[in-house]
Amino acid sequence: MASVDVPVALLGYGTVGAAVNRLLVEGADEIERATGHKLRVTRALVRDTGKERDYPVADGVLTTDFRSVLEDDSIALVAEVMGGVEPTGGYVLDLLRSGKPVVSANKQLLARRSADLFEAASEGGVQLRFEASVCAAIPVIKVLRESLVVTNVHRVLGIVNGTTNFILTRMEEGADYEEALAEAQRLGYAEADPTDDVSGADAAAKMAVLATVAFGSRVELADVAYEGIEGIKPHHVAAARELETVVRLVGSATLVDGAVDVRVGPAFVDGHHPLAAVVGAFNAVMLQGDAIREITLEGPGAGGIETASAVVADMVSVLGTTGTGFLQNDACWRSLSKLPPGDLPGAFYVHLEVADRPGVLAHVADCFAEQDVSIAQLAQHLVNGTAALDLVTHEAPGGRVEAALSSAAALAEVRSRPEALRMITERGF
Amino acid sequence: MASVDVPVALLGYGTVGAAVNRLLVEGADEIERATGHKLRVTRALVRDTGKERDYPVADGVLTTDFRSVLEDDSIALVAEVMGGVEPTGGYVLDLLRSGKPVVSANKQLLARRSADLFEAASEGGVQLRFEASVCAAIPVIKVLRESLVVTNVHRVLGIVNGTTNFILTRMEEGADYEEALAEAQRLGYAEADPTDDVSGADAAAKMAVLATVAFGSRVELADVAYEGIEGIKPHHVAAARELETVVRLVGSATLVDGAVDVRVGPAFVDGHHPLAAVVGAFNAVMLQGDAIREITLEGPGAGGIETASAVVADMVSVLGTTGTGFLQNDACWRSLSKLPPGDLPGAFYVHLEVADRPGVLAHVADCFAEQDVSIAQLAQHLVNGTAALDLVTHEAPGGRVEAALSSAAALAEVRSRPEALRMITERGF
Repeated sequence: MASVDVPVALLGYGTVGAAVNRLLVEGADEIERATGHKLRVTRALVRDTGKERDYPVADGVLTTDFRSVLEDDSIALVAEVMGGVEPTGGYVLDLLRSGKPVVSANKQLLARRSADLFEAASEGGVQLRFEASVCAAIPVIKVLRESLVVTNVHRVLGIVNGTTNFILTRMEEGADYEEALAEAQRLGYAEADPTDDVSGADAAAKMAVLATVAFGSRVELADVAYEGIEGIKPHHVAAARELETVVRLVGSATLVDGAVDVRVGPAFVDGHHPLAAVVGAFNAVMLQGDAIREITLEGPGAGGIETASAVVADMVSVLGTTGTGFLQNDACWRSLSKLPPGDLPGAFYVHLEVADRPGVLAHVADCFAEQDVSIAQLAQHLVNGTAALDLVTHEAPGGRVEAALSSAAALAEVRSRPEALRMITERGF
Repeated sequence: MASVDVPVALLGYGTVGAAVNRLLVEGADEIERATGHKLRVTRALVRDTGKERDYPVADGVLTTDFRSVLEDDSIALVAEVMGGVEPTGGYVLDLLRSGKPVVSANKQLLARRSADLFEAASEGGVQLRFEASVCAAIPVIKVLRESLVVTNVHRVLGIVNGTTNFILTRMEEGADYEEALAEAQRLGYAEADPTDDVSGADAAAKMAVLATVAFGSRVELADVAYEGIEGIKPHHVAAARELETVVRLVGSATLVDGAVDVRVGPAFVDGHHPLAAVVGAFNAVMLQGDAIREITLEGPGAGGIETASAVVADMVSVLGTTGTGFLQNDACWRSLSKLPPGDLPGAFYVHLEVADRPGVLAHVADCFAEQDVSIAQLAQHLVNGTAALDLVTHEAPGGRVEAALSSAAALAEVRSRPEALRMITERGF
């Protein structure tokens, strides 16, 4: 088959855009070999054409006019690497509706407007691919959409934020939260304002995208309950170790009787669980489904060249499937209800500080029994006249554990707000 | 796009074949949604049409005549799930040459005849996909061929045999080799004759396929040097633990200055390495490349339904790319030379039993110094008048370490054949 020349455009030409162009140029032979197509960037939308660029393009390629991309019929494919929700979202919708396939690296856009985007792609009869929007080069979207078509994925568990994973693994090695955060900032893993990462918001956006793809039902950022790692103290890390677990910021997307639960929060992950082995700034996503038991994908979840590599892979995949009808359905093809937040079952680690008096343990245990939450393990520690109770529940709906904690908090002998963290032990078999 | 009816054939209708048919029937809606195509098994080649089947097919589907598959123009796609090298290889070649795309789950066939098969596919202008031939449902072939097109993968490290991984992790928990093997047989992880697994031969076949795909150059089973786990004793497991490593049967495929090395053998894997976290009968493959640092895929590497799921994913992918020119190049597009076996560098763990006499250590150290192999760590243990030396080398070509061991073996004070195992510490960054 003779090679076909394929003019493509980029929206944005910053670090990722320049890296995409470089990979397209340096990888041209490989791409031609795999696809029978030669990809060539003929237009790149930027705000300022005069700015100096990392990997400069030929004269006439840079433009500040979106219409010169939209209305150029020669452009077969557009990669959106400019970021932001507006005006980016409008651009992408226009492109899809006009019949141009789009590859996007934009987590925030996908997490906020995926349903509109999928609908536009379906209307335009073209593909929208977005591997780079979640976990950079880890090919989790492709695997979900193409390899696991018939496996009914019912659970996605992920460590999808490298900054927090770096901080938590440094805390395991003895640092406190502030030291670990400062180190992450020094190494460039955390921003000067780390809120988006440490609050769990970044992970929540990624879990919204993953849940949408895994379940085929619209999940947006606003649907994801999230909690960050700002409250994690050395005593949590120590308690986790005693239980042969590690503290991780875990995103989970779960189908329970046809209803969807998506959340992000710190959790105690069993030491033998594949997610417990993810250290430093790495990411990993575990997919659990009927025919596969579980598949875990691990790798660097960020980085300019890693992200660019995923963008190029998507461009190659668009070329490789165009005209076949593949992945041109609306990816949000069903509308599943949301699970009430208290209904998601799980085992919990619970920590309470109590007066060292006979009967306390019985009173606390009563609070759990009243909520029908059974206790799997319990240990009492004495520190300076205050006793601390560490307990692990059997699996129970989170709402009932919360209710038990509220009653326990009201006991005269309980001296601090009880804390609970989910335990992640579930495997796909 | 209106759905297209796609008649397909199976070669073989045993456990995997029946599971493929079941997944095609039960997943018909998902497949139609993703691809716009309805897949339907219209022919299945078997040896005995009268035999009772797990998931029976309609009358007239079973056939003993290969020509009724080959010559039926309505059949758009064939999945080979019959196993064996002959007559299977001839069937697959005939199908590809006649322009029928083939999906194969056949590790032995791919490991022995991949170059001929790829050539036939290229001639016939059709795809050959073979995800299920390596590590069942773990989508490593798809990721290598489609996601990592521009990343110059230069190293593949894998735990690709579940039986041996189960045995080694049971030995870590205190079992000896015979106990662990017997348990693996009881649980159905190992055959009554476990040779193919424990000798490393099964892993070698998988590494041949992975190396071929990763490097685009023909690597056949005969090119893979392999060693099994039959010689692993509790003292190796203990020595590994002391070095904060674990014993694993590791397959590696490495590009060194444009030459290929593929091998399988027991190794000490650093405790922080993602492959060290792979326990029980699971498999994992780490891919290292320029733009991605490293990506690790982990999951069940065997099982009928897992294998069938990978076959169906390949069928879906063939439909999704037909007519686009995608992956229709010869997958063995270059011919790389083989690295001389002694040239592959690495760090090694070495164990020697020696007489407890002054000067022994110096004599042993001399043997290594003469080969320009530097020693990173050394520990001497005394057991019943015999001293054991455990040492770890810095990185050096394996051939020079072998030569050092030969000289050491010839020393009067050395009382046993020196043993060496590779250390796996390399990460993709």
